[in-house]
Amino acid sequence: MLKRTHLIAGDWVGAETTFANEPVSGPADRFATGSPALVARACEAAEEAFASYGHSPRAERAAFLRRIADEIDARGDAITATGVRETGLPGARLDSERNRTTGQLNLFAAHVEAGDYLDRRRDRAQPDRQPPRPDLRLMQRPVGAVAVFGASNFPLAFSTAGGDTASALAAGCPVVVKGHSAHPGVSDLVAQAIDAARIACGLHPGVFSQIQGGDRAVGQALVQHPLIRAVGFTGSLAGGRALFDLCAARPEPIPFFGELGSVNPMFILDGALAARGAEIARGWAGTLSLGAGQFCTNPGIAVLTEGPGAEAFAQAARAALGEIRPQTMLTAGIAAAYRSGCDRMAAAPGVRSLLTGMCGQRDVMPYLHATTGAGWLADAALGEEVFGPLGLIVTVRDSAERMAVARSLQGQLTCTLHMDDADAASARALMTVLERKAGRVLANGFPTGVEVCDAMVHGGPYPASTNFGATSVGTMSIRRWLRPVCYQNMPDSVLPDDLI
Amino acid sequence: MLKRTHLIAGDWVGAETTFANEPVSGPADRFATGSPALVARACEAAEEAFASYGHSPRAERAAFLRRIADEIDARGDAITATGVRETGLPGARLDSERNRTTGQLNLFAAHVEAGDYLDRRRDRAQPDRQPPRPDLRLMQRPVGAVAVFGASNFPLAFSTAGGDTASALAAGCPVVVKGHSAHPGVSDLVAQAIDAARIACGLHPGVFSQIQGGDRAVGQALVQHPLIRAVGFTGSLAGGRALFDLCAARPEPIPFFGELGSVNPMFILDGALAARGAEIARGWAGTLSLGAGQFCTNPGIAVLTEGPGAEAFAQAARAALGEIRPQTMLTAGIAAAYRSGCDRMAAAPGVRSLLTGMCGQRDVMPYLHATTGAGWLADAALGEEVFGPLGLIVTVRDSAERMAVARSLQGQLTCTLHMDDADAASARALMTVLERKAGRVLANGFPTGVEVCDAMVHGGPYPASTNFGATSVGTMSIRRWLRPVCYQNMPDSVLPDDLI
Repeated sequence: MLKRTHLIAGDWVGAETTFANEPVSGPADRFATGSPALVARACEAAEEAFASYGHSPRAERAAFLRRIADEIDARGDAITATGVRETGLPGARLDSERNRTTGQLNLFAAHVEAGDYLDRRRDRAQPDRQPPRPDLRLMQRPVGAVAVFGASNFPLAFSTAGGDTASALAAGCPVVVKGHSAHPGVSDLVAQAIDAARIACGLHPGVFSQIQGGDRAVGQALVQHPLIRAVGFTGSLAGGRALFDLCAARPEPIPFFGELGSVNPMFILDGALAARGAEIARGWAGTLSLGAGQFCTNPGIAVLTEGPGAEAFAQAARAALGEIRPQTMLTAGIAAAYRSGCDRMAAAPGVRSLLTGMCGQRDVMPYLHATTGAGWLADAALGEEVFGPLGLIVTVRDSAERMAVARSLQGQLTCTLHMDDADAASARALMTVLERKAGRVLANGFPTGVEVCDAMVHGGPYPASTNFGATSVGTMSIRRWLRPVCYQNMPDSVLPDDLI
Repeated sequence: MLKRTHLIAGDWVGAETTFANEPVSGPADRFATGSPALVARACEAAEEAFASYGHSPRAERAAFLRRIADEIDARGDAITATGVRETGLPGARLDSERNRTTGQLNLFAAHVEAGDYLDRRRDRAQPDRQPPRPDLRLMQRPVGAVAVFGASNFPLAFSTAGGDTASALAAGCPVVVKGHSAHPGVSDLVAQAIDAARIACGLHPGVFSQIQGGDRAVGQALVQHPLIRAVGFTGSLAGGRALFDLCAARPEPIPFFGELGSVNPMFILDGALAARGAEIARGWAGTLSLGAGQFCTNPGIAVLTEGPGAEAFAQAARAALGEIRPQTMLTAGIAAAYRSGCDRMAAAPGVRSLLTGMCGQRDVMPYLHATTGAGWLADAALGEEVFGPLGLIVTVRDSAERMAVARSLQGQLTCTLHMDDADAASARALMTVLERKAGRVLANGFPTGVEVCDAMVHGGPYPASTNFGATSVGTMSIRRWLRPVCYQNMPDSVLPDDLI
């Protein structure tokens, strides 16, 4: 079933060197390692494909996206079985992530069919005005070939046929994926689904290519290739910033849409803390440990006023997290980074450990730490993301210190308020700060669920994202792959079909 | 009338060092030179102003913009008189540029009142779905303090109260302007108009500051200041790229919306050339020399098929350009750069000079050169912008070479087709290339007029602009200063007024 090779414009291509995946059980599989030469082949084919695909009727692209969803579902059992082996995620989670992935493809199919994303505008000619006004029409057009980097933590929804790929293909952009080395088998099967859909729809093979991971030079070559016009990335701050810098340093810079890191603070206001602190703590513990905490929107920080309410909150969170059984992380490297992040935080001045847990090399347990507002404000490193089920409680003296903590935050994907009616004034004050820190602010809930819809923003100020104007989830994410073009006095014989 | 100082959050602030403007006649005026310390003061005041201005009712911002327009008009005679002295531009041109500037301010007033730019979206709660869907609302919010760099060639419409400032203030962003050293007097008077409007509207003084030019360190400090969230720039490729690089290298990168250079090629197709080549040539000569060719959208290149039609075109263009009298450029430095650019082009292998002209140090005459398609393709430097009334005719052997010339183009603000009905097939083929090269493609006209409207795109692939997704003219330009924020399950007591 597995090809174990790259997919370059319709050809399954091997390589002299290979890398192994890391199954949770059973023997490893070996996959071909990418190279800059393969990147160049894929990018050249993508540019060639753009000549037709970039001008394809929207209905054709919608049919392609729906067919990809169907082909993925047809391989559903194999994808889940492979995903369970490679990632350690439960089968039910992978099944639901597959539903999310096919849902995204179908959502974008409907979105391009509707055509609102084209943002068509027209200012009609005014020949009698002095000076005369020409006829002006505007439409959003696809940018060209797009590079997509698969993410470790969503082997389906943010990888080979994930949101970046779905939105780029919807826009009319050919896609070159760099598969993540944490789940090459899943990427392999999903690429097979896309290729089958591509063949069924009779599209140019350059519309989609995938180069498997295993070598940093591949990613660097991909973002630097002159035919790549934009990049979608979800991953680490260090890796993402390095690629962002390469994009900015190109002779012709291109946009790098990277989602790099977020600790997603929650502010539990006094009324809510008094009324239902323990309940919020238990909900937090469940969210924090969900899927071993391996979500971009995992709420790692809880900020609340010191006192008996804070102590009860901490006790309830500790008790609930203490019940969590060991969970397998996506890779041994991610588990090791989690443990060293927990140790680093425990060693920070002013940080108390409330819960620690030891277990096997790829299995982890939740950690819970606490510090004061002053401790937080004194150590910016406490605000750096530790990927995994790590919670940090920050107890502040008063509302002024709470505001200072809010102002000290880096950019976030989400910020959360837990509030009662009596907290409205505090919430409004905090909101003026949090709204500038995050792409999404929410009340009385947990941020981990990221709805795929029109009003979603999955982005935010740096380092949550490298482009605070963009989202990587929801229909608005298609904007990343579009550019406006104005057509002045253009005869119908030359105008794009969508403008006639 | 002139303050000769900076305007820092309502205070007119001098400095120990000064620089002189370059009047075309009469004595020079001296203006205070900026410093990084003044930049910091302005940025801190802008951040402080954002707390109120960033949440101000749209009607208040509309009133402010309209009042700025009125205050500029009230100073119209002084502005034009000062502008004529500083820039050498005719009074009628400055009057009409002032109308364009106040028109932009009034357009953005109406645009924010209408509110469509907020792009409000809502996905309502579905409590019975599994998992339940929360209530999600999205709105565009201002990014914070914006830096604007005045342009040399539009002392009003792209400077102190130009399109960047108007759109940023409309969005709710305080603005810090770096005035251009080519016209500090005009910038001074316009800043007085903005300050008067700011006082009349009772706004926080940090909403607008202007630091006069004269020192490169000022611009560098401005784009690197941590409180600046985005930059608008119109100017040279070298200067703009240096600032872009600084923005990308910040600890927290910010978007740099720079418009850097364009040669705006025209393709005269065979049918149009045969039918009305000489007429197009005369129109071109008039456009090319308009305002001494000092427009970003000046069409410097004409591409057409070799033969008798091309020769007639060249003769007609040469004759029409030969009639143009010497014109004064914006600064002596710009005139010197024009002459050296003309000389560089004349010295390039395969380039013939059809028209050259000599005159005084700040006055210039049009130059006309010619080369072949092969000559063009062999020398990428021929595609670099020479700011001023310089035309280059590129004669191609056939349609294949014409396509090759089109493919060789760098990013452009505009590309133009001159075509008749019989040229439709050639135009369609060319369009697939030109549409990817330019933000605006036009037929049977000249690109110099940039209509300020909904459907305008004044931008394009690099180096025309550093962000191919953006425009710096027209209502869509407000998007540069906005970021989407999603509000999830947020009670009305905390939601922004615009979402209730």
